Amino acid sequence: MGKLQLAVIQMKVVDDKKMNIKKAEKMIKKAVDKKAKLIILPEMFNCPYQTDLFPVYAEKEKGYTYQQLSRIAKENDIYLVGGSIPERVGNRVYNTSYIFNNRGEKIGKHRKIHLFDIDIKGGQTFIESETLNNGNDINIINTPFAKLGVIICYDLRFPELSRLLVNKGAEIIIVPGAFNMTTGPAHWEILFRTRALDNQIYMIGAAPARNEESSYISYGNSIVVDPWGKVVNRLSKEEGILYEEIDLRLIKKIRAELPLLKHIRSDLYKISQITEARGDS
Amino acid sequence: MGKLQLAVIQMKVVDDKKMNIKKAEKMIKKAVDKKAKLIILPEMFNCPYQTDLFPVYAEKEKGYTYQQLSRIAKENDIYLVGGSIPERVGNRVYNTSYIFNNRGEKIGKHRKIHLFDIDIKGGQTFIESETLNNGNDINIINTPFAKLGVIICYDLRFPELSRLLVNKGAEIIIVPGAFNMTTGPAHWEILFRTRALDNQIYMIGAAPARNEESSYISYGNSIVVDPWGKVVNRLSKEEGILYEEIDLRLIKKIRAELPLLKHIRSDLYKISQITEARGDS
Repeated sequence: MGKLQLAVIQMKVVDDKKMNIKKAEKMIKKAVDKKAKLIILPEMFNCPYQTDLFPVYAEKEKGYTYQQLSRIAKENDIYLVGGSIPERVGNRVYNTSYIFNNRGEKIGKHRKIHLFDIDIKGGQTFIESETLNNGNDINIINTPFAKLGVIICYDLRFPELSRLLVNKGAEIIIVPGAFNMTTGPAHWEILFRTRALDNQIYMIGAAPARNEESSYISYGNSIVVDPWGKVVNRLSKEEGILYEEIDLRLIKKIRAELPLLKHIRSDLYKISQITEARGDS
Repeated sequence: MGKLQLAVIQMKVVDDKKMNIKKAEKMIKKAVDKKAKLIILPEMFNCPYQTDLFPVYAEKEKGYTYQQLSRIAKENDIYLVGGSIPERVGNRVYNTSYIFNNRGEKIGKHRKIHLFDIDIKGGQTFIESETLNNGNDINIINTPFAKLGVIICYDLRFPELSRLLVNKGAEIIIVPGAFNMTTGPAHWEILFRTRALDNQIYMIGAAPARNEESSYISYGNSIVVDPWGKVVNRLSKEEGILYEEIDLRLIKKIRAELPLLKHIRSDLYKISQITEARGDS
């Protein structure tokens, strides 16, 4: 474990799928010029964030967007966390992240486990479960530089999930996520910081840029937090690329100084995973 | 559930036990004049925060400090969370919080479950386990106004514990705690905010005032956070009383708007308590 140059692509998402993918590729190439080895796209980067559009934009695994991501990873010799896209399996639609290695091979996949159904008086209303299905798998993604966990947006709100991933060895948890203008200012930063702090890992959030014309307005603020819970880099609302070189050795240093994970009272309480996999991937 | 007037006593702790208790009583009476019904003392309010002194100041249950707290609760017609004190059981010493009702009866007890052993280069070093033993019980305290959880300081760093208490019904988690000048500025606020937010409860921190002459310097900053994760009141470093009227109906409102606790995937993962009690209380 050593230093890793990463880039988060905070792109503005429009309603043209191919234009979104072209934009992603253009920004990825820019990040590659700056020596990024791990590049991360935001949640639903190929599709507007609207429940009624998820089924319309959805593709089967190995569909058009998947193929493009695979090609882009290979051509640019990068590890690519493909944000998320709507995935179709029969009548079901998932919010799915595909992760590719630098040969363009899929090395991981995460379907959003917790769906975002919210109704705040005077604030945000959004019922994701109207058109999406829950994922059921909790997996670690192995790379030469670190073990990754990938979770999506609302998944971040459940401390059990991050802890389970860390118990499985995750050193970086990557969160493609589009918080909104109600929950973003109130909760985005402290959730990333506390998950990083509790688990002594890097947490990375990848958000779409703010698009005031959307029905659902992303908060933006893509973020990198270190294992001490400190924000080391953060974008604002505009489209842009977050560059950060993270030092994975910091995980070991902080865990030695403040051995939180050793102090977990696993003799008194335990988080356990009930189902390893349900065979629906 | 309705409104509750509470007070947190952020007192400066000195090395004279009786003076500490007198100071606590004086400040409690002041809070009673302001109609406080639930009053909270800080961690180790009767003893300097030094591992070598914990055994020296330790008392058996129903010892001097316990009796004083019981009397003060009864005389002032208040619910009293007695911060914490060193408790002796044979050769063992615990960091223990006693909770009394307005008739002076003990209605709850918490022994610090996670001991604070830390060694930060250029920062704080403290090895609590040199003289203290771990508590092993996770209990809810019933009151007419709400179900309480009480945890102590370093216990706050383990999300499993707060979640277990909330699963048992806790609506307010009270944390007598003395973070220091390394961990306080870095972590105190976000831990209270995120535990409150994740669990949609009130979190209350009660710290000793900063005493620059101590070997271990408390960060202070006693705090009240609401179930949306918002800091609603906070002291600075000086001795003083935090007054806050909290509205327990906010818990229900926020849980209706953003039903996080309903969205926990208990079909996929679960936090379970391994031992109900070990009979060492």
